[in-house]
Amino acid sequence: MSSHTIAFIGLGNMGAPMAQNLFKAGHTVRAFDLSAAACKAAALEGLTVSTSASDAVNGADIVISMLPASRHVELLYLGDTGLLRKLPKGTLVIDSSTIAPASARKVAEAASGAGLAFLDAPVSGGTAGAAAGTLTFMIGGDAADLERATPVLRNMGANLFHAGGHGAGQATKLCNNMLLAVLMIGTSEALSLGQSLGLDTKVLSEVMRRSSGGNWALEKYNPMPGVMDTAPASRGYSGGFGTDLMLKDLGLAVEAALASGSSVPLGGLARDLYAAHSKAGHGGLDFSSVIGMLSPGTLRK
Amino acid sequence: MSSHTIAFIGLGNMGAPMAQNLFKAGHTVRAFDLSAAACKAAALEGLTVSTSASDAVNGADIVISMLPASRHVELLYLGDTGLLRKLPKGTLVIDSSTIAPASARKVAEAASGAGLAFLDAPVSGGTAGAAAGTLTFMIGGDAADLERATPVLRNMGANLFHAGGHGAGQATKLCNNMLLAVLMIGTSEALSLGQSLGLDTKVLSEVMRRSSGGNWALEKYNPMPGVMDTAPASRGYSGGFGTDLMLKDLGLAVEAALASGSSVPLGGLARDLYAAHSKAGHGGLDFSSVIGMLSPGTLRK
Amino acid sequence: MSSHTIAFIGLGNMGAPMAQNLFKAGHTVRAFDLSAAACKAAALEGLTVSTSASDAVNGADIVISMLPASRHVELLYLGDTGLLRKLPKGTLVIDSSTIAPASARKVAEAASGAGLAFLDAPVSGGTAGAAAGTLTFMIGGDAADLERATPVLRNMGANLFHAGGHGAGQATKLCNNMLLAVLMIGTSEALSLGQSLGLDTKVLSEVMRRSSGGNWALEKYNPMPGVMDTAPASRGYSGGFGTDLMLKDLGLAVEAALASGSSVPLGGLARDLYAAHSKAGHGGLDFSSVIGMLSPGTLRK
Amino acid sequence: MSSHTIAFIGLGNMGAPMAQNLFKAGHTVRAFDLSAAACKAAALEGLTVSTSASDAVNGADIVISMLPASRHVELLYLGDTGLLRKLPKGTLVIDSSTIAPASARKVAEAASGAGLAFLDAPVSGGTAGAAAGTLTFMIGGDAADLERATPVLRNMGANLFHAGGHGAGQATKLCNNMLLAVLMIGTSEALSLGQSLGLDTKVLSEVMRRSSGGNWALEKYNPMPGVMDTAPASRGYSGGFGTDLMLKDLGLAVEAALASGSSVPLGGLARDLYAAHSKAGHGGLDFSSVIGMLSPGTLRK
Repeated sequence: MSSHTIAFIGLGNMGAPMAQNLFKAGHTVRAFDLSAAACKAAALEGLTVSTSASDAVNGADIVISMLPASRHVELLYLGDTGLLRKLPKGTLVIDSSTIAPASARKVAEAASGAGLAFLDAPVSGGTAGAAAGTLTFMIGGDAADLERATPVLRNMGANLFHAGGHGAGQATKLCNNMLLAVLMIGTSEALSLGQSLGLDTKVLSEVMRRSSGGNWALEKYNPMPGVMDTAPASRGYSGGFGTDLMLKDLGLAVEAALASGSSVPLGGLARDLYAAHSKAGHGGLDFSSVIGMLSPGTLRK
Repeated sequence: MSSHTIAFIGLGNMGAPMAQNLFKAGHTVRAFDLSAAACKAAALEGLTVSTSASDAVNGADIVISMLPASRHVELLYLGDTGLLRKLPKGTLVIDSSTIAPASARKVAEAASGAGLAFLDAPVSGGTAGAAAGTLTFMIGGDAADLERATPVLRNMGANLFHAGGHGAGQATKLCNNMLLAVLMIGTSEALSLGQSLGLDTKVLSEVMRRSSGGNWALEKYNPMPGVMDTAPASRGYSGGFGTDLMLKDLGLAVEAALASGSSVPLGGLARDLYAAHSKAGHGGLDFSSVIGMLSPGTLRK
Repeated sequence: MSSHTIAFIGLGNMGAPMAQNLFKAGHTVRAFDLSAAACKAAALEGLTVSTSASDAVNGADIVISMLPASRHVELLYLGDTGLLRKLPKGTLVIDSSTIAPASARKVAEAASGAGLAFLDAPVSGGTAGAAAGTLTFMIGGDAADLERATPVLRNMGANLFHAGGHGAGQATKLCNNMLLAVLMIGTSEALSLGQSLGLDTKVLSEVMRRSSGGNWALEKYNPMPGVMDTAPASRGYSGGFGTDLMLKDLGLAVEAALASGSSVPLGGLARDLYAAHSKAGHGGLDFSSVIGMLSPGTLRK
Repeated sequence: MSSHTIAFIGLGNMGAPMAQNLFKAGHTVRAFDLSAAACKAAALEGLTVSTSASDAVNGADIVISMLPASRHVELLYLGDTGLLRKLPKGTLVIDSSTIAPASARKVAEAASGAGLAFLDAPVSGGTAGAAAGTLTFMIGGDAADLERATPVLRNMGANLFHAGGHGAGQATKLCNNMLLAVLMIGTSEALSLGQSLGLDTKVLSEVMRRSSGGNWALEKYNPMPGVMDTAPASRGYSGGFGTDLMLKDLGLAVEAALASGSSVPLGGLARDLYAAHSKAGHGGLDFSSVIGMLSPGTLRK
């Protein structure tokens, strides 16, 4: 495997371990974050910390960004002071933030215009997957660019899916996560109803998992406390994928539905239930804690 | 395997092939249905057709019923003229109809009072599963009674799940099918939204199937025409599990939610969307045709 | 006005003041309730208290019942020991309980068969309306019977609506209350959203009340604390029409939708939101407290 | 009343009759629209037609715009070529388009910076109200500016509501119209359910209108054909306020809910039902035609 000089912008809960995995794999990582604390922590881990994003990209043949929202990504890359103006032709730019597909396409177009290769490559798998290097990447862009990025992405993730052209990675992620929210609430309703009817939720979970109700939540992430030892539900809904992160992704999905005139009755309702759950003070709990809206007892265990 | 004399009441689209499979397995099957045409068809297949339900149970050590709704099951078994009064002690009674758990428990109690063994054993798998003998049974009742029933149930089904005590088979089925309806509409929304965003729905289906959006609908029963050759969506939504049957099961689920004070926002909405879909004239199409509410073009292919 | 001997069965929060108003209007009221405490309270108010329902109807030309649910009404009137067997032909029976239309029709048919006049006459207006004698009656049955009942109903209510034949009073009430729940939650959403957008909710309420958002909740029962001094929202959601009573009425509405194959997406969702609100511990608060699901701060004021 | 020179930009179905009413009231109206046909029609009505928006504002002391969406309004006023750069200090700018509150505030800020007075003043009342000069204006901005605008607004509308500061007019309109959509679907559900239960929908409408289900839809705009002669429902859902216009307003409301983290379960579901109704081919029908999703027969009358 060839070694690269990689500029990594955004050292949050996800970005920090991802950058760390690149470093461990033998790449030169030039890291930057607006938070001094994040930079300091990265330096302690051995990464080369830059004083600005434009400093970080000096000498880099690959740029990776992992930022909170569309506006941060656009600010980083676009405009007179954006990175796209500074990068040498041929640089490979990978944005792993979860943002609006339209925003990803805007950056991709500007990158193409500047002779750069661009991939939108949002991830799933949470902080645990980021630390373990087992993330799933949903990728939009040209196949040749993806081929070039593959060895580097494999340093951070276990599954790489080529979803289509520019923006398709983001579009795929928001479709998937909207569906995930529906699976999670639907599964919670079935378990909560079953419990009210006197069923053993362990047995019910197992039967549905192997029947036509089978889905990822029953397989890996059961929301009812006590059914699955490894799930956040069995440790007070700590860790995992936070309610407020799910709410953000559902916001992107609903926004895309508005823009495309799509009808998403269950997905839209899931978004409003998560908003209510967050407003009730549970934004920091794992997203499977939404079962508490149906069975309040689950949140007290 | 020992051979039994089995009274089989209810020779509809599901009951007829189930009875046929018992006959093929070497049992003596005494069949009855209120429809003369159904009886005639059964006779042509070689079954012994009775003139009434009470005639059918003569000499039977096992009674199996497969009827449309709670009221038919209660009418068959309960009251002064019901079968429970006529059956010799020790007879094993299996009701495979899909009915309200409360109704199943009522019959089970009366059966116990009369010294009979009772199992509620609703099925999933549709007419294809009934014909192939690959149904899934969700079973409520005593373990000893289930053990006794197992060889006979295996003649009709591939999977037997012991869900709990009396009524638990029905309760489990309605939880599962409510969840299934949510999976199907949620999956339809994700695919419909993805299509509007310009994604290839085959690729999107595959990525979500292998990610956290994974569920039975993506695995076995994709609702988007052309994605899965074997699914009803690829043959005009014919065959499969009809919209009106799903609507009936969702009615049982919502009824159970009302009775138990449970909150089922997505399941309840799924019920109302299926009701609207049925009212629009699509009650006879496979239940995956609900995607047509979101992407009307799918129904015209 | 002629004076009657009226048997009044059911002396709960609604029944007691209704019976009292009949007594004050000069009728002989023979009252009964299964609760000894309720009977004692009625006696203190001067009513003639009976030892049983069948004792209460002795000598009565009118029977009025105000009971919790369908099963209590059917138990009171139907069967071998039911009142309908005991009443002299021509007695006028008025059931003011809120029950299923099908149940009301069943009692009406049995009453007709016994030569009795029957009206289903559920009320709205709450305990305050019951005390003030300003209830609204929604009435199903024959016009001639309603004419006969009118003077007596006017002793308890301000508005009498003839909704149609037997059962129509109940059907109308459940349609109205399902709509009311939708108005209340919809109004709560608009006010909560407006507040988040920085609007003054008093001004917003006034503008919407006079525009196309105008509805009963904005007119009489604003759910936002501080907007309307006389509303339960401005006294900690105490008094008024309880969440659990609304939940019961929504249950009847959804049950009727299931039975008639109707699609009620917003009404059904309102039911599930009220169920969640009740499960969260707010069943005893006024039904306008549902705004707390959207703006949790409102419940803490 | 003093006469003004008013530049009117946007001569669509709403703008044309509004401009016409200003002209009839004695003002000099300098009109412009990107559509040549619209300009020609305006000229035939006697208005002075300009060759561009910047030509139209020459000599005008008041500018009024009536455009389809946020982007058109921002394009008209903002940027290097925007009108705000050209208008003399003190000009009164009134935008009557229905756009995002954030967009209105952006224009208002730029206007203030340029020494101009700005009001966001979206309307309701439809094309009939525009023609009759009986529109309702919901207005955001300073009281002094509103006072100055009042005589001119009264030439076009019957009701002027001061909703608050800049953007409050838009925010109020989207709250109101989200509530209106909920009222309309909720009323449709109640009528459709009542009809299924055998009720006379005329009687039901009248009882609910006078009870706690009372709302604007029952008062002025009954969605069931035949109940109200003057409503669009009684003329094949033609005229009135189109489904696609309601869908646009619901999009703005949901967008505002996303941006402010608000939970709007019924409003969000209403949006998705209208999106499905539009996709089914009914975008051009009056918005009360949504009852056709519940009672398909209504659309065939």
